[in-house]
Amino acid sequence: MNEIKLIDIRKNILSDNEDQADAIRIDLAEKEVFMVNLMASPGAGKTSVILQTINKLRNLLRIAVIEGDIESLVDSEKITAQGIPAVQIQTGGACHLDAAMITPALQELNLNELDLVFIENIGNLVCPAEFDTGSNLKVMILSIPEGDDKALKYPLMFSVCDALMINKTDYLDRSDFNMELLYKQVHRLNPEIMIFEVSCQTGSGIEAWSNWLLTLVQEKKHDK
Amino acid sequence: MNEIKLIDIRKNILSDNEDQADAIRIDLAEKEVFMVNLMASPGAGKTSVILQTINKLRNLLRIAVIEGDIESLVDSEKITAQGIPAVQIQTGGACHLDAAMITPALQELNLNELDLVFIENIGNLVCPAEFDTGSNLKVMILSIPEGDDKALKYPLMFSVCDALMINKTDYLDRSDFNMELLYKQVHRLNPEIMIFEVSCQTGSGIEAWSNWLLTLVQEKKHDK
Repeated sequence: MNEIKLIDIRKNILSDNEDQADAIRIDLAEKEVFMVNLMASPGAGKTSVILQTINKLRNLLRIAVIEGDIESLVDSEKITAQGIPAVQIQTGGACHLDAAMITPALQELNLNELDLVFIENIGNLVCPAEFDTGSNLKVMILSIPEGDDKALKYPLMFSVCDALMINKTDYLDRSDFNMELLYKQVHRLNPEIMIFEVSCQTGSGIEAWSNWLLTLVQEKKHDK
Repeated sequence: MNEIKLIDIRKNILSDNEDQADAIRIDLAEKEVFMVNLMASPGAGKTSVILQTINKLRNLLRIAVIEGDIESLVDSEKITAQGIPAVQIQTGGACHLDAAMITPALQELNLNELDLVFIENIGNLVCPAEFDTGSNLKVMILSIPEGDDKALKYPLMFSVCDALMINKTDYLDRSDFNMELLYKQVHRLNPEIMIFEVSCQTGSGIEAWSNWLLTLVQEKKHDK
C-alpha cells in the first residue's frame, strides 16, 4: 500500500515564519538592537504605551517604531510627531504581522543607529499570538474596560507573552474588575509573566515598566 | 501554450462559506427565525448587549444564543443563568465563526420554538467581518474606551455591518472621544448603517435598539 503524503500547510507556514524570525533575531543581535512585539485588542492603548515609553527612555535609548495596521497612518503620524522614526506596514486585511512583513520594515530603518524597536501589532488578541515576528520580547496590553475574564477567553496570547501591561487603571474606580482573579488566571497560564499595572492617562506605573525594559535592553547589549 | 490553472483557495473557501450561509438563511426563513451576528473587540460588551436585549424582549420573542469563544464557557453560563438556551462553539484557536460552525450549532436548538437567535462572534474586529454566518443582520459594537479612530483602522467591519452600537457611553464624561468625527468616518464607509448609542451599565439607549430589532424580526415574519 502506498503511503499517503500529508502536507500540513499550516505547520509549514508557521515553521517558515519561525526560520525567518530567527534570521531577524540574528541580524538584530549583530546590530545590538532590541525589538519588542506589542500586542493587544483594538483600543487597549498600544500607541499610548509606546508614546509614554518613548517619553521616559528617549534620552537613554535610540528608539524607532514599526506600526502595523490594516489601513490608515493614524498611529505612525502620532509617532513621527514626536520626532521618532516610524515605518508603517499596511496589511490590507491581514489580521496579524509576521516575520516576512517585519523583514522589509526593518530594512527601512537604520539599525546601526538604534537601540530599541517597537512593533505595534494589529489590534487583535487572537492571530498575532501565533506568529513570531523576530522580536526579543512579547508584551501584551489588557485594558481595564475590557474586563477581567480575558485570560480565560484568549489563553494563547497570555501564554506566549513575557510581560502583561494592565492599562487604563484610572478606570478601576468605576469598574468591578477583579484584579486578584485576573492575576490568578494569568499565572495559571504563564507563571513567569511580568505584570505591570499602568495608566497612560495619569502616567502611573510607566516608570516601573520603562525601567524594566531599559534593563533588558542594556543586558542584551552586555551579553554580546 | 498551456493555460495555467490557478486555484484561489481563499476565494473557494469564501464562496463555499457563502453557499452554506445561504442554506442557513433558507432554513431560518422556513422556520421564521431571525438571526443576528454580533461582532466586536474583546470586552466591548457583546454579552452585556445580548443580556440587556434579552431583558427587554424576552416577553415578546423566544430567544436563544450561540456563543463563539476560543475557549471557556464564561459567556454561555451568563446566558443560561437567565433561563435562555445557549450553544457554545469552542473554536480551539480559530479567530472567527463561519457558516460551517453555525450549521451544527443551530441543530442543537429547537428552531420551531424560537423567533430570534443571537450569534456572539469571537472578540475580534478583523477576521469575523470576512465570514458570512448565515445571519439576517450583522451588528458591531464599538465601546467608548476603544477610541474614536477605529473606523479608519478596521474599515471592513464598519462597512459590512447593518448596525453599529456605540457602547459604554457612560465613559464619555472622562474621554476625549469625538462622536461627530466617528459618525463622519463611519458614514463615509457605510452611509446606510444604523447607529445606536447605548450603555449597558445605565441601560441608556437599549430601548431604541431593542425596538428597532423587534420591528425587523416582526417584519421578517410578515414577509413570509
